[in-house]
Amino acid sequence: MSQKVQEFNEYRSKMNEKILSNDNKIIKRIFNLDTNAFKEGHLPVKTKELLGLVASAVLRCDDCIAYHLETAHKSGVTKEEVMETLSIATLVGGTIVIPHLRKAYEYWEVLESN
Amino acid sequence: MSQKVQEFNEYRSKMNEKILSNDNKIIKRIFNLDTNAFKEGHLPVKTKELLGLVASAVLRCDDCIAYHLETAHKSGVTKEEVMETLSIATLVGGTIVIPHLRKAYEYWEVLESN
Amino acid sequence: MSQKVQEFNEYRSKMNEKILSNDNKIIKRIFNLDTNAFKEGHLPVKTKELLGLVASAVLRCDDCIAYHLETAHKSGVTKEEVMETLSIATLVGGTIVIPHLRKAYEYWEVLESN
Amino acid sequence: MSQKVQEFNEYRSKMNEKILSNDNKIIKRIFNLDTNAFKEGHLPVKTKELLGLVASAVLRCDDCIAYHLETAHKSGVTKEEVMETLSIATLVGGTIVIPHLRKAYEYWEVLESN
Amino acid sequence: MSQKVQEFNEYRSKMNEKILSNDNKIIKRIFNLDTNAFKEGHLPVKTKELLGLVASAVLRCDDCIAYHLETAHKSGVTKEEVMETLSIATLVGGTIVIPHLRKAYEYWEVLESN
Amino acid sequence: MSQKVQEFNEYRSKMNEKILSNDNKIIKRIFNLDTNAFKEGHLPVKTKELLGLVASAVLRCDDCIAYHLETAHKSGVTKEEVMETLSIATLVGGTIVIPHLRKAYEYWEVLESN
Repeated sequence: MSQKVQEFNEYRSKMNEKILSNDNKIIKRIFNLDTNAFKEGHLPVKTKELLGLVASAVLRCDDCIAYHLETAHKSGVTKEEVMETLSIATLVGGTIVIPHLRKAYEYWEVLESN
Repeated sequence: MSQKVQEFNEYRSKMNEKILSNDNKIIKRIFNLDTNAFKEGHLPVKTKELLGLVASAVLRCDDCIAYHLETAHKSGVTKEEVMETLSIATLVGGTIVIPHLRKAYEYWEVLESN
Repeated sequence: MSQKVQEFNEYRSKMNEKILSNDNKIIKRIFNLDTNAFKEGHLPVKTKELLGLVASAVLRCDDCIAYHLETAHKSGVTKEEVMETLSIATLVGGTIVIPHLRKAYEYWEVLESN
Repeated sequence: MSQKVQEFNEYRSKMNEKILSNDNKIIKRIFNLDTNAFKEGHLPVKTKELLGLVASAVLRCDDCIAYHLETAHKSGVTKEEVMETLSIATLVGGTIVIPHLRKAYEYWEVLESN
Repeated sequence: MSQKVQEFNEYRSKMNEKILSNDNKIIKRIFNLDTNAFKEGHLPVKTKELLGLVASAVLRCDDCIAYHLETAHKSGVTKEEVMETLSIATLVGGTIVIPHLRKAYEYWEVLESN
Repeated sequence: MSQKVQEFNEYRSKMNEKILSNDNKIIKRIFNLDTNAFKEGHLPVKTKELLGLVASAVLRCDDCIAYHLETAHKSGVTKEEVMETLSIATLVGGTIVIPHLRKAYEYWEVLESN
């Protein structure tokens, strides 16, 4: 895996572990829900990942975008599907989304190059 | 069609027409893009409608939610798929989305009852 | 209870019930968390209600503000404490919060007049 | 003045008065700043009103949009200038701004018809 | 003080000084309000700091979170109180807040280690 | 040009080129609109740049602010006009805008020093 993706994942894992080592039940359950919500249901995993991606993009959260790009990549989403999803995000969320689109594109390239 | 849906659609059509009767090219083109972005592409129409729905929900725009619920309904999306999409929106966007979830549910009931 | 508060509560209860009658576990658990998060913990209920109020105000959600005003009122929060909380919301969130401040003030008056 | 504009202004004045009758200095000063910030300075009043309008539009605050449309109208801003300002808001803020664009257009028509 | 906290504070001080050296009264007064709003009032300083923290967290502003974590730490807020505050922020603001939760946790560790 | 501005511009150009090399028509057209919307129209370029700046600031997008600061600088906007624009952004958008104000100020200094 490229260094960029690896560093991002390691930091996320390390901090998540620390946060979850506390006795805060609300946060623990939210983390737990986050895993469950994107599992196969009435909608397939791929569609759910794209839903997570578009939500992250219009809310302009780079780390969330990176996370969903990676899980989308793992579940077999194509570049064209990612681009269409991000085009809807940019239209609905406005040009303010464009800086995040650039970072998303860069991150996807890294994922594809592995 | 129920009165609620009809009134919403009539107001939207009337105002869109007025806005587009002006010479503002930027607005005209954005409206035009809005139609094109949700057409069949690499992703099917149904998936795109759910992408539009989740984006509208996390950005907490009732009118946009209503619009995408109606187009989703027309393209054959089921209630379970809508609920899963809105559950992701509520998780990603937070409990602040709940008041919009109530209105969305109410609007969907109207659409289904027609 | 005044009509305004009653109508708001009835609509909320009715729609919540409908939403929860579905089999969507993610939404059910988020609703459940929402109840638990504001219970007495390391922080007293009153402080938590003010945290919920300020979060609702800066995110500009009228229904959420009304909900937390009512629970804050029930837990013995004073008007001065509400005003200080809303002043922080208006400072941090900007003058864009002012229309919600007007509605919040109006709703609080109704709660106090009962 | 049309009934719609009058009712909006009366409600705003009545509630502002109530809010300012309290001893909360932070809120009083924010209201005071709001008046001062839009006075003639290095930038003319008209430009400042358009800045207030575009900020209100991308933040999707209908009451704030209505307020700045009225002050813009009083300071001699033309319909074309309003439309260009709102087109930038819709481009930067995305199609999520469109429902507010419809209400803004409707409000401007009322202002012009007086 | 750790290097991270020190660098953040030095940059903030340096830039604030530059900004305030200009003749812009609006900005000066907003900075001034920011100091006053968090002083002891009807609510104690500790509660106000938690209000500032939750507002910063749901609005997803890392620098604002860091600032309020530091002032909260100085006013004697405990880790458990911070975690409860951030759990409400994550619930109300959604999982989109989680990346900021990670940075907040990391920053709090630095503050506690001094 | 200073290194900071140059690096930012090069990254933006490189990524925009990559994004536009795809066949996604929606994104291409949004980029195209972004160029057209800020051209001379009923409003002069300078005013439009300030509209873009205030929208970017209240939506808290550092890259968008940097972009509009540079185009504003090129079109002859003065420091005082930038400061007045940013003061309106900070008032309307709240103290949450302040970290972006610091970065904006720093970026403007770089632009002026060239």
